[in-house]
Amino acid sequence: MASLTKFSLAEANAVLARTPATLNALLRGLPDIWLRCNEGTDTWSAFDIMGHLIFGERTDWMPRVRIILENGEARPFDPFDRFAQLTQSQDKSMEIEQLLDDFARLRKDNLAGLQALNLQQEDLIRRGRHPALGAVTLSELLATWAVHDLTHVHQLSRVLAHQYRDAVGPWNAYLGVLQCTGHSAA
Amino acid sequence: MASLTKFSLAEANAVLARTPATLNALLRGLPDIWLRCNEGTDTWSAFDIMGHLIFGERTDWMPRVRIILENGEARPFDPFDRFAQLTQSQDKSMEIEQLLDDFARLRKDNLAGLQALNLQQEDLIRRGRHPALGAVTLSELLATWAVHDLTHVHQLSRVLAHQYRDAVGPWNAYLGVLQCTGHSAA
Repeated sequence: MASLTKFSLAEANAVLARTPATLNALLRGLPDIWLRCNEGTDTWSAFDIMGHLIFGERTDWMPRVRIILENGEARPFDPFDRFAQLTQSQDKSMEIEQLLDDFARLRKDNLAGLQALNLQQEDLIRRGRHPALGAVTLSELLATWAVHDLTHVHQLSRVLAHQYRDAVGPWNAYLGVLQCTGHSAA
Repeated sequence: MASLTKFSLAEANAVLARTPATLNALLRGLPDIWLRCNEGTDTWSAFDIMGHLIFGERTDWMPRVRIILENGEARPFDPFDRFAQLTQSQDKSMEIEQLLDDFARLRKDNLAGLQALNLQQEDLIRRGRHPALGAVTLSELLATWAVHDLTHVHQLSRVLAHQYRDAVGPWNAYLGVLQCTGHSAA
């Protein structure tokens, strides 16, 4: 399988382990103008993105790993509520520092749980069933976890940059992030 | 001016001051597969992006601030060589750690230099002349410096994610960063 020659558990782990510190460096202590703003109606702020990442750590990634290992394709994954953070009231009053700390702790625990599974190369081709996408492998799930982090770093840089869309004046045309309109599936 | 009501020196500084730590958290110690790969012919790796950011700190941002303050529109900015890092031989053998350290030191020095200028609100509307864009203001230059950082965080997340384009399997469709084709002006 072409995907397996490229995927490496250690290399995926290297990305996953760095994301909490990356988000911490980018967001902790930033003025609220950066943290509370979004890109317009029905778009996400840095707070919403952190809430989404935390929800994923709690309900999505490692639970799906365990479903693959324990049930294979027999039990489809629970759907991931990608908008849970928008309806969970406790996040609205939270400080960004609390969200960053929660995410860092959950990620650390999840990566420790992943390591404890002592996955072997042959485990990585084990299959599960995604409720919409159908058959997927464990390595695809783990690669997606890492790229999902990068998707939200990508989004965060765009949300922050959006606030200075006017402020940069004619340089707008040179700044790639200001041309990005987002690419998430509906 | 609409742009001035949104621009704030303190808020721009908050972004500029965080970028070295953000890049450090994301890149230091990452396996070479992430750091040396790019998105194909004539695209940039994490090494190239760090070289470009360093070159900007050395030759572009603060020199342009000083040209505005000292010469106004009378002296156009020197053009910014956006590909300098691709021809500067010293970067090719450098470790990412050295590039991250150089960038952090230069950024710290430049922000200290900026603070030492003690810019007032009335300075922010002073004008300079961009060789291609024409008249620009000091606040537009400073906002662009911050958004330029975010453009390269945006690019970096995309370059890294690209390496797992196949590895994520059918999740490809859900991951926004994999749909981004880049948006930099030619």
